[in-house]
Amino acid sequence: MADADVDVVVIGAGLSGLYAAKILEENGLTVSVVEARERVGGRTCTVRGSSNGYTDVGAGYIGPTQDIVKNLATELGLELCDVYNEGNVVMNYKSIWATFHGIIPPYWNPFKLLDLNNIIRTVDAMAKQVPRNAPWMAQKAAEWDRMTVKEFIDRTCWTNAARDILVFVRSVLTSEPHEVSFLFFLWFIHSGGGLMRLASVKDGAQEQKVVGGTQQLSEGMVKNLKGTVHLSSPVVSVDQTRDKVLVKDSNGHQYQGKYVVSTVPQALLNRISFCPSLPDLKLQLIQRMPMGSIIKTFMFYDTPFWREKKFSGSITSDFGPVTYCLDDTKPDGSHPCIMGFVLADQARNLVEMSVTERKTTLCQYYAKAFKMDRFMQPTDYIEKNWMEDEFSGGCYLGVMPPGVLTKYGRMLRKPIGRVHFAGTETATEWIGYMDGALQSGDRAAHEILDKLAIQWLESGRGSSAIIIPSPSLSEMILPSVNAILYASTGAAVSYLAYLIYPYFFGWRWKVTSYMFDRMFKN
Amino acid sequence: MADADVDVVVIGAGLSGLYAAKILEENGLTVSVVEARERVGGRTCTVRGSSNGYTDVGAGYIGPTQDIVKNLATELGLELCDVYNEGNVVMNYKSIWATFHGIIPPYWNPFKLLDLNNIIRTVDAMAKQVPRNAPWMAQKAAEWDRMTVKEFIDRTCWTNAARDILVFVRSVLTSEPHEVSFLFFLWFIHSGGGLMRLASVKDGAQEQKVVGGTQQLSEGMVKNLKGTVHLSSPVVSVDQTRDKVLVKDSNGHQYQGKYVVSTVPQALLNRISFCPSLPDLKLQLIQRMPMGSIIKTFMFYDTPFWREKKFSGSITSDFGPVTYCLDDTKPDGSHPCIMGFVLADQARNLVEMSVTERKTTLCQYYAKAFKMDRFMQPTDYIEKNWMEDEFSGGCYLGVMPPGVLTKYGRMLRKPIGRVHFAGTETATEWIGYMDGALQSGDRAAHEILDKLAIQWLESGRGSSAIIIPSPSLSEMILPSVNAILYASTGAAVSYLAYLIYPYFFGWRWKVTSYMFDRMFKN
Repeated sequence: MADADVDVVVIGAGLSGLYAAKILEENGLTVSVVEARERVGGRTCTVRGSSNGYTDVGAGYIGPTQDIVKNLATELGLELCDVYNEGNVVMNYKSIWATFHGIIPPYWNPFKLLDLNNIIRTVDAMAKQVPRNAPWMAQKAAEWDRMTVKEFIDRTCWTNAARDILVFVRSVLTSEPHEVSFLFFLWFIHSGGGLMRLASVKDGAQEQKVVGGTQQLSEGMVKNLKGTVHLSSPVVSVDQTRDKVLVKDSNGHQYQGKYVVSTVPQALLNRISFCPSLPDLKLQLIQRMPMGSIIKTFMFYDTPFWREKKFSGSITSDFGPVTYCLDDTKPDGSHPCIMGFVLADQARNLVEMSVTERKTTLCQYYAKAFKMDRFMQPTDYIEKNWMEDEFSGGCYLGVMPPGVLTKYGRMLRKPIGRVHFAGTETATEWIGYMDGALQSGDRAAHEILDKLAIQWLESGRGSSAIIIPSPSLSEMILPSVNAILYASTGAAVSYLAYLIYPYFFGWRWKVTSYMFDRMFKN
Repeated sequence: MADADVDVVVIGAGLSGLYAAKILEENGLTVSVVEARERVGGRTCTVRGSSNGYTDVGAGYIGPTQDIVKNLATELGLELCDVYNEGNVVMNYKSIWATFHGIIPPYWNPFKLLDLNNIIRTVDAMAKQVPRNAPWMAQKAAEWDRMTVKEFIDRTCWTNAARDILVFVRSVLTSEPHEVSFLFFLWFIHSGGGLMRLASVKDGAQEQKVVGGTQQLSEGMVKNLKGTVHLSSPVVSVDQTRDKVLVKDSNGHQYQGKYVVSTVPQALLNRISFCPSLPDLKLQLIQRMPMGSIIKTFMFYDTPFWREKKFSGSITSDFGPVTYCLDDTKPDGSHPCIMGFVLADQARNLVEMSVTERKTTLCQYYAKAFKMDRFMQPTDYIEKNWMEDEFSGGCYLGVMPPGVLTKYGRMLRKPIGRVHFAGTETATEWIGYMDGALQSGDRAAHEILDKLAIQWLESGRGSSAIIIPSPSLSEMILPSVNAILYASTGAAVSYLAYLIYPYFFGWRWKVTSYMFDRMFKN
């Protein structure tokens, strides 16, 4: 009766679903993959065939300790290349324009540097206290989950170095700092190995790209798969009331399996009607993990002329349409391009414009930020508004507002009957990244293998430990603005005490000698 | 081909859907109502036929200025009765137990009273600045939407009178204060006419109940309806690509209409597959408006013995399983009962218990809070866990975390093609209440009548203006703790200045006379 009868039905042919299918097949199980879109890859998507070569309008970057995705690329014979990182970054802030190499801006005000050093050190130290497997178990989980990231920044920063953190939050979470729980943010930071790793190009999460595009990862896995991938088949229901789990798509096709792996983002799980209904806390969790807001844009030029002026092609900005951009020119120097992230509130604002208006707005912005009029003459423009993609609901990932992680976090990965959950939001390493997606697929597959008591083969799981580096000696020694204030106040009070000491000396001396007398001469 | 071909297909046979249907029919249109559940009423639900008479396990209370629901009750021949409000409320806080009549607790510490007075006055004044029709237009909308309610309380309160507000937030929004945007909270307060109105039994939102239960409102409307109400028919898709809008349910039935009214809570709109897909900002809004968390409980006893001790049967509490409870004995004195709200984090905790465990936990709590052991001998227990209700996803209402209202609020009521949106979350008066549901249905119906250029009849819209009362003279005159601190500091500084004045007199006199000389003798 069913169109497919297999061991495991996988819902979603993105990285996590296909990786789960791969692991399951490698361990001797039969698999069917059911995908809503007319393509595989999920939140990775490579636009090809145009005059611009290939363009990763979805997930693009790979960095150190992301071993699962690196191993997979090697296995599939894909090549990685470095992201262009020579020359200077432009810091284009409301109050300051500067250009420098690296991550830490060249503030002349030492208080700003101390403040920035302090918040990075503090956040990293706090993140280490959040267990990756169970963030709700952190000692201060309840307190941190009641706060937004913005609230924490407001409480901790003395200078507007806070803006750097704000820009960072937007860049990694595609959400505003006031939208996200501080505990969730710390968990995310821990899962990727610390603030600097996440923020960096060199030795960081933006270090490399896949030559030919990241969608090849999924395509490669499909090629090696024995089971069928059913495209254009949005799943509408999952029925667990029978012997086997019955999955139906909107075309009326039915797939049955002993188990199901769902890789649907939590926020979109409501698109599937479960029988029996999902339990209470899961029903509520899936209303509480909204997908981020982003338009990923690519502006093409005839030459990478910004390199002549020693610009790396990267801007960080606390205003304007683009929060963060990078040189996206192909490794062979062809198709010169600036990739720009339009994020969070900016994405929600710019979405009202037409494509042409957005293109012009971005060019004007680049011209001004780089101070080079040549940015006004692009040769082409490509964009992907992930907010209008009904099968993603947004990108890069689903985030948690305050109060969700401590009360509903346990439901993220918990299997519901014979349905297991994957997807990058359910990862514990590199949450929100391609590596996290693969890790979650690996985990879901192994959950099922364990339930079936199958002695599983070693898979391509990561080998480098993801560790937040300890601060360097100078980072540790440098005082916070707080510490300086305390020390100054301490010094001032001591000096005052020193000044007025003589007036009290007589009195104190009398008390001391009286006590001395009582104690020893009694 | 379609099972029904009408002017308007209404999705949802709750108060808003049936009221929309009623208005549309009264203006000459044909209507079909498609409902997911096997009953009408939506978030109103009356359990009947047991030995306990009738019990409103869903929405129950009606108050002043809720004219639409009052008019409807009158029209349907339903009787309202007063909620029992004699005797004293118990304030059962971690740090204090007290019993008193009314709303404002009898704090002996004047600072607490001043602080409470100040925060009520401040919140009401701010709420007035939030336009009910367009809360995102408030002058400080952006600032207030970046804050949680908790953050505002932390910043504003000096004493732990803040707890009273915390308890209030939980009671009216079924969410923790750190989960909700402060702007959303202000909007909600404004929509109901101010803090005191919302918090009160007498002259407030908990003043009256419907004799026989609130579900009769829906049942009454169905009886008068000409069109059919299709029960047990969860809608799975809405197709707007044809001449008429095509609505399909999970049984394969099809309904077509010129227009559609959807009363599905925003958080559950993902259950319907729209063709064409919903636009980007709507797709993201519906991921950002989670339904509250509540288990509504009813503990029955053989007599209302608490009345003997001059207890009203009401407790407010900042700990323990029940945040707020009320005497729910029937107006004729039969079926003595305490209705208890298990809310927000408490609901998420208690959901892990069995029904029997929950019953015992509640009895123990009542016995301790009222200091009467007789609460340990209930005759019966009824509860409704709205979190597990897949067609509500939670109760009383969907709330907005920080950042949502300013960026997505415009999409709440905005029609998408020929689909119009109702439901209490889309109301502008009494959001989250039965009256708000009716108002939203009325509004959606009139949107369609206007599109069809039908000269509509006057309907039962409200006549009393919802106005946040101005503070009384004493409330206005009473200083805040802040003001007292400023005044004290001012006084101290003045006194100090008075003391050291002589030392500077000579110098100041010289300056003054020099300036006087320059000005007048030049």
